[in-house]
Amino acid sequence: MKITIIGNGSALPAYGRFPTAQVIEINQQLFLIDCGEGTQMRMKQFDIKSMRINHLFISHAHGDHYFGLVGLISSMALLGREKKLYIYCNAFIKKVIDLQIPWNLSFEIEYRFIAEGEHALLVQHEKYEVSCFPVNHSVPTHGFLFVEKKRKRILLPDKVKQYEIPTYFYSKLTEGEDYIDKYQQVIQNEWVTSEGNPYKKYAFCADTIFNPEICKYIHGVDLLYHETTYLQDNLLKAKERYHSTAIEAATIAKMADCKHLIIGHFSSKYKDILPFQEEARSIFEHTDLALEGEVFEL
Amino acid sequence: MKITIIGNGSALPAYGRFPTAQVIEINQQLFLIDCGEGTQMRMKQFDIKSMRINHLFISHAHGDHYFGLVGLISSMALLGREKKLYIYCNAFIKKVIDLQIPWNLSFEIEYRFIAEGEHALLVQHEKYEVSCFPVNHSVPTHGFLFVEKKRKRILLPDKVKQYEIPTYFYSKLTEGEDYIDKYQQVIQNEWVTSEGNPYKKYAFCADTIFNPEICKYIHGVDLLYHETTYLQDNLLKAKERYHSTAIEAATIAKMADCKHLIIGHFSSKYKDILPFQEEARSIFEHTDLALEGEVFEL
Repeated sequence: MKITIIGNGSALPAYGRFPTAQVIEINQQLFLIDCGEGTQMRMKQFDIKSMRINHLFISHAHGDHYFGLVGLISSMALLGREKKLYIYCNAFIKKVIDLQIPWNLSFEIEYRFIAEGEHALLVQHEKYEVSCFPVNHSVPTHGFLFVEKKRKRILLPDKVKQYEIPTYFYSKLTEGEDYIDKYQQVIQNEWVTSEGNPYKKYAFCADTIFNPEICKYIHGVDLLYHETTYLQDNLLKAKERYHSTAIEAATIAKMADCKHLIIGHFSSKYKDILPFQEEARSIFEHTDLALEGEVFEL
Repeated sequence: MKITIIGNGSALPAYGRFPTAQVIEINQQLFLIDCGEGTQMRMKQFDIKSMRINHLFISHAHGDHYFGLVGLISSMALLGREKKLYIYCNAFIKKVIDLQIPWNLSFEIEYRFIAEGEHALLVQHEKYEVSCFPVNHSVPTHGFLFVEKKRKRILLPDKVKQYEIPTYFYSKLTEGEDYIDKYQQVIQNEWVTSEGNPYKKYAFCADTIFNPEICKYIHGVDLLYHETTYLQDNLLKAKERYHSTAIEAATIAKMADCKHLIIGHFSSKYKDILPFQEEARSIFEHTDLALEGEVFEL
């Protein structure tokens, strides 16, 4: 799984920072989370082919998270896209698209509306799944959990030799099959393989006030993105506007036992964003800034 | 008058080119023509304060000319704008804004809808005026003519001395007043001053098929912007899509006796845009590419 940061700014573009957007790659599929103004230009700069995106998630209907959507969809049509596009969003987003693109596109858009407070599986695939969970913002808002499903089982070299399993059967072993030898003995899979790597998990927490309730959705993830619109000097403003500080984001990462935290959605108040990292690291050491163009691999 | 090119691309962003937008400065007032996606970010890069824009013109309701408008208006509100904003556009544009910004803003927007085929004065001021004129595109589209009005009359040094006009009266002379001397003789203004510089004129021709009919609106302008979506190798495509080639733009500049031509709205087909300049110059020598960030002064 690979996460590319497209934009890390908040409502007001400032200091070259673009509004929220991230591209997740799993199993050669691209997923786009949020689509602020300029997302399509920014993706081009980072050499990401927007035509490879089949699933698009909008966390909430604030402009800095969706104003780039109509432009992206128009461009997909101009490029002659034929593949269906799935959009997971609030029903309002469809109205915005329908008003500005009332004609038939060269491809179908299938909307899956997310209801306020909904916690549900949105995408289910043999190799990955994506679910949404509610966070607490000034409008209905959802985070998304991406799971790359368990990899193939790992062969135990000594054991496969000991049971004389022919090499042509190795790939079946990694898929969990038992082997039946020439004496019709069943060599059980777990005798000759170990568990594959555990599921890789990435949680995107969208815009939210500090809320430990979300820990249940994101517990133990390998990578957590949590917004940090403000530093601790603006704690009250953060609360008023249903946003979080760096300290609060780090506290969530710690409480939810996450392995790694990335932070973004920096307010236009701040030119220098390094203090976000410093404040967060004082609580949760393994924190990085979600810098635009940066790629995080799991 | 100062024209800054914000975006020179066409429908599909490509090679770092942004969609159409230009900022015109006259008498310390900023006017924005068109507002494709990313215009507000691009203006920031070019150090143009969007809060100084009071008049905003949308040539037509194609996305690459207005998708950045809702983001720009949101940002103005976030920055606490109080001054009225005038938007000159097709009535559809208001629907797009009203859907996405249904709440009361901190400032008033006054719309002046432009009807199909309309040729009218939109802004009238002592020092400048802006009018619209119809061009021919696949949807109702308008160009805009910016006129910086005649400067003050110019004093004739020998004459003002000869008639013994006191220096305190010089500024009134430049405004065209006659002087009455101590013998109650009228010293007529034209005896002691010459005509000021002629009006400066800039015409923005929006998206249009080649159409000599527009020459009557833009005759003799100091600077003409004409779209050149395609090179001559795509003349048929240009016609089909109601766009122009570089040769056609240059032909219009020549026919309309313009002094200087700038060209833009380059199709994403072309990585290298220098051939646009070469083709145009073969017809009209004083042609320049409307490069993003470039400033043209009149």
